[in-house]
Amino acid sequence: MPRIDPALAAVRTAVRADLADLGPGDLVLVACSGGPDSLALAAAVAHEARRVGRSVRSRGYAVRAGAVVVDHGLQPGSAAVAARAARQCRALGLDPVLVRTVDVVVGGGDGTEAAARTARYAALEAAAAGSGAAAVLLGHTLDDQAEQVLLGLARGSGARSLGGMPARRGPYRRPFLTLRREQILAACAASGIVPWHDPTNSPAPDGGTPAPLRSQVRRWLLPVLAEVLGPGAVEALARSADQLRDDAAVLEDLGAELLAAARSGEPARGPADPVVLDVAPLERAPAAVRRRALRAAALEAGCPAGATTSRHVDALDALVVRWRGQGAVHLPADVRAVRDCGRLFLRPSVTGPRHPATHPEE
Amino acid sequence: MPRIDPALAAVRTAVRADLADLGPGDLVLVACSGGPDSLALAAAVAHEARRVGRSVRSRGYAVRAGAVVVDHGLQPGSAAVAARAARQCRALGLDPVLVRTVDVVVGGGDGTEAAARTARYAALEAAAAGSGAAAVLLGHTLDDQAEQVLLGLARGSGARSLGGMPARRGPYRRPFLTLRREQILAACAASGIVPWHDPTNSPAPDGGTPAPLRSQVRRWLLPVLAEVLGPGAVEALARSADQLRDDAAVLEDLGAELLAAARSGEPARGPADPVVLDVAPLERAPAAVRRRALRAAALEAGCPAGATTSRHVDALDALVVRWRGQGAVHLPADVRAVRDCGRLFLRPSVTGPRHPATHPEE
Repeated sequence: MPRIDPALAAVRTAVRADLADLGPGDLVLVACSGGPDSLALAAAVAHEARRVGRSVRSRGYAVRAGAVVVDHGLQPGSAAVAARAARQCRALGLDPVLVRTVDVVVGGGDGTEAAARTARYAALEAAAAGSGAAAVLLGHTLDDQAEQVLLGLARGSGARSLGGMPARRGPYRRPFLTLRREQILAACAASGIVPWHDPTNSPAPDGGTPAPLRSQVRRWLLPVLAEVLGPGAVEALARSADQLRDDAAVLEDLGAELLAAARSGEPARGPADPVVLDVAPLERAPAAVRRRALRAAALEAGCPAGATTSRHVDALDALVVRWRGQGAVHLPADVRAVRDCGRLFLRPSVTGPRHPATHPEE
Repeated sequence: MPRIDPALAAVRTAVRADLADLGPGDLVLVACSGGPDSLALAAAVAHEARRVGRSVRSRGYAVRAGAVVVDHGLQPGSAAVAARAARQCRALGLDPVLVRTVDVVVGGGDGTEAAARTARYAALEAAAAGSGAAAVLLGHTLDDQAEQVLLGLARGSGARSLGGMPARRGPYRRPFLTLRREQILAACAASGIVPWHDPTNSPAPDGGTPAPLRSQVRRWLLPVLAEVLGPGAVEALARSADQLRDDAAVLEDLGAELLAAARSGEPARGPADPVVLDVAPLERAPAAVRRRALRAAALEAGCPAGATTSRHVDALDALVVRWRGQGAVHLPADVRAVRDCGRLFLRPSVTGPRHPATHPEE
């Protein structure tokens, strides 16, 4: 038997470990763009589904492996790219291979990249629900994780966004999160896979549109980081992310407990009623917990998570701990926060349906 | 009255706010290297001590301002650099101006930079204690903070080291932590101060020794970071650090509580006795809290803080949550951890004094 390429072995081992808890007949869907990460994932999943089937059970595959290809329709030729990725997945033996075309609503608050992401995840979840899949596998690598941490750092938004991507959440699994991108590329080469390379991940030609921020981080910032801080810096970024994600989980639980304590005694609220909080328990809490409770309160009052920044939380926090009679704090989606008589009121926008809970529209 | 330079105004305002809680006759010492940050700080402190004296009280200076210059003796001519810095401080009206020569123990585990830092802070604290100073002022800027965060990221060591430097801790205050280095340089120019530029902060000439890691971060990594992520990225790094420091404070308190719970019922230990912990409460705790309790236990058993990495904590954590009968975990300073009958034992080195608490040496 020929020796297997070490990168290909690492890729397959990561997938095998990630599928180990699935039962016979369970379906997993690989989210495949046709790029190297997700094609390598599709190939490894196709291979391991067969192996697991042969080695553990004699009555066929333990795990069924399919794929979803999402066409965002944002670039000329995107349908052809999607069709090529689907053909490659079918050639690898994946079944079903679903192609989903999505409408990306451009012009929202968070930009095209965020809108595309939202549409993509909605399509993946619909495909998983429609096909009864037990899991959706994503090809994010350790390099993607490091990029995510650097992008989070640049937003200054604390442990939540610095924590990057979890290995598992909801239906999603990321078996490659401990592998370097160069291992994925080597595995593609070793198994004869020819991936599609997204031109938006390359630097813009002179006069072209600028590459998305993430691609610039990948191309310019990570190499300098590894050059200055040493080759282990990318792994260290990802390790920091793991720890910060654990930290954020604990602190967000404490924030939720504090939020509950701060509104004990308040009546249940309808969707257009203000969120009302007692200032006293907030004042006594440590800043890290208080800020998380205030952010959760803002989201409950209708602020979109993506638009609610640490600056907004700072302003809310000032109402609690630097109170000197200041006026209303303006939050995203026209939510307003005021302090009155030892209580905070976070009022949803009055331009939306007024008091739908008490005056439902017929 | 001529218009004051805006950078100089920002520098003085920062110092005035930081001195506001001090009383008449209190002494502050500026830690001065002769470089731009600490000379600008010395000048602003000299100016503000007079101003505060004039505007608030008629009977003289509210705050007395002195300086400490530490000569590390690591470079040829370091004594002349220290003497020049001391002359500049005296010319600014600071009094007393203390010069302290320290012996840097090179060849310890953490390298020359860390040894110099340890020696410097020991000298500053001795000078503060000897002169009865209420505070020691340090010239660290927002750029230093961002560098600190990037260095912490590269170590992969979680929120504690990512949190960077606090604005105040113990006797230390950092009034410039919200100011950019370029503001400090502009303030120096505006007030005619000619600082000394440390050659180890510059890139190594061909064939010379490499610049220290922090200087490489300053010269190569931060500019690329700002170029790729935008001019606000350095401020965002510092803002992230503030939040992570708050997070770390809460989680370390929870870790200390968990450590206390895990050893309830154990007898008080002498310095050579093992730290003994009940595994059950550790297993039930969230990872972020458990890891901090385990790290604190390792330090109590004699591991040096600087040498105890997240890898060591991982190995300890595996004894708790991935127990499959593994052997002793080897920790820094020859501390060993074993699990036996549902308890963890962290044993201090046996090469040190054996059981000094029960068999004191005569």
